[in-house]
Amino acid sequence: MAVPAQDLPARVRIHEVGARDGLQNEKATVPTEVKAEFIRRLADAGLTTIEATSFVHPRWVPQLADAEQLFPQVADLPVTLPVLVPNERGLERALALGARHVAVFASATESFAKANLNRTVDESLAMFEPVVHRAKDAGSAVRGYVSMCFGDPWEGPVPVHQVVRVCKALRDMGCDELSLGDTIGVATPGHVQSLLAELNEEGVPTSALAVHFHDTYGQALSNTLAALQHGVATVDASAGGLGGCPYAKSATGNLATEDLVWMLQGLGIDTGVDLGRLTATSVWMAGRLGRPSPSRTVKALGKTTQSHQE
Amino acid sequence: MAVPAQDLPARVRIHEVGARDGLQNEKATVPTEVKAEFIRRLADAGLTTIEATSFVHPRWVPQLADAEQLFPQVADLPVTLPVLVPNERGLERALALGARHVAVFASATESFAKANLNRTVDESLAMFEPVVHRAKDAGSAVRGYVSMCFGDPWEGPVPVHQVVRVCKALRDMGCDELSLGDTIGVATPGHVQSLLAELNEEGVPTSALAVHFHDTYGQALSNTLAALQHGVATVDASAGGLGGCPYAKSATGNLATEDLVWMLQGLGIDTGVDLGRLTATSVWMAGRLGRPSPSRTVKALGKTTQSHQE
Repeated sequence: MAVPAQDLPARVRIHEVGARDGLQNEKATVPTEVKAEFIRRLADAGLTTIEATSFVHPRWVPQLADAEQLFPQVADLPVTLPVLVPNERGLERALALGARHVAVFASATESFAKANLNRTVDESLAMFEPVVHRAKDAGSAVRGYVSMCFGDPWEGPVPVHQVVRVCKALRDMGCDELSLGDTIGVATPGHVQSLLAELNEEGVPTSALAVHFHDTYGQALSNTLAALQHGVATVDASAGGLGGCPYAKSATGNLATEDLVWMLQGLGIDTGVDLGRLTATSVWMAGRLGRPSPSRTVKALGKTTQSHQE
Repeated sequence: MAVPAQDLPARVRIHEVGARDGLQNEKATVPTEVKAEFIRRLADAGLTTIEATSFVHPRWVPQLADAEQLFPQVADLPVTLPVLVPNERGLERALALGARHVAVFASATESFAKANLNRTVDESLAMFEPVVHRAKDAGSAVRGYVSMCFGDPWEGPVPVHQVVRVCKALRDMGCDELSLGDTIGVATPGHVQSLLAELNEEGVPTSALAVHFHDTYGQALSNTLAALQHGVATVDASAGGLGGCPYAKSATGNLATEDLVWMLQGLGIDTGVDLGRLTATSVWMAGRLGRPSPSRTVKALGKTTQSHQE
């Protein structure tokens, strides 16, 4: 039974990150054919934006070292397949394979910029500028990830103006969409709405914003609801909650796409996703990874869909 | 960093159900002294309403067969200690021990009334009426639980008017507070807000309402946010998410108190709860039950609080 709530978007686009952000953070290295099959099943379940892989140096992210082999195997799917590009070299590799949606990965904090990119925030923005320009010139859409938008493990709470500055810089260099990441999962709904309002005031429209929540403290879905109430209509999620083991003390799992779809379906918000097929895909993938999905919806529905998973 | 959101209550009272609803649904039978210690630790963590036990027939709920032994061990705590009473006999046992807050347990659906109480909805309401009257006469406050307020495993979605009818009947017989239960965890925020609005229209004030969500599909906290936005200021939760094994296919865990407190703290809403102490209590209890807590916040914080748990 779908019961709409007031002032929510009629349609939400899910930006599925399981194959990239999810698998990048899994210990197991997944064979290229399994990744391709995973992406095909996600498309078959109705997801229309499926982040496929990352063209970073294999030394940094060995889990995604097969980007060159994987991308051509899925490139013909009738869906949008963004890929992560860390620099100009990664962008050229992606463009050469026909990628037409790329993403750069910035940080709102100096500590994480240093840890993740070995640069200051400004140095990393300077590194991304030619990447974004070249991508736009080549006809590619560009997403800018902004991590640590709410809290940072070294710096604690992150001031809103600091996040806004990075977002504006990415918009100014040409990013079409920004994904606001709560990388350590500490955000709560008031903080989410205050960041969104401040971004609007500084000229960044809600239509250019996506949210990317982690479920470390169980807050991802309520933060998503707060963002939808502000008008955000693009939500990042990871099929089955892939990425970050739920049994580790420092679990940092992504919002599970199934838990998100359950809420959106109940609200009568169109996503195009078939929840049964998606759950079956996550059950299948959990089998390949050798551990159960941390998604509550997959746990609850998995029993009924497991029978037609293959 | 606390960032308030608009139009939320300044203070929320948490109705802690771990010792009753939680332990009632755990497979392990917990020794009486451990239950008493659990309740003392919950009080020490700042919880002010701790549902202690149930005076049902031991044959139905063997996990809580020690109500007579347990209640006197905690009765001197400076907190409110509601107990469940299924009928007049249970009520007399509770009153004799000095209980001054009791709760009856109704169903919004015929199927669950039959399964749980072996009566029709109307027969069960008729059974509760003298219980509520006698309790009020004895100076006790009375809470009415209403289960299956959103969906029912046999009947599917539950019409709002059906829930409203049961709620009005319980109010008319004298219940001070109603707890709206999403027993199978299927609710979504629009459905929550529509039920609350309909109850208001039919004369049941929000101040008399509590919400009781289950995390079966990961929806409990976003539904809670929707209820807070409607003005609800009493929320049921279970320390550590006790009640319903997270590894079972049919997991039906309660909203974890820690996940709730994380959100409320982030919103600057006062609960009086010390999250560190509460987490330590849940880690301690998980040790007694021999399995990890399903609460994401307990998982994330447990590492840091485990050292001072004893």
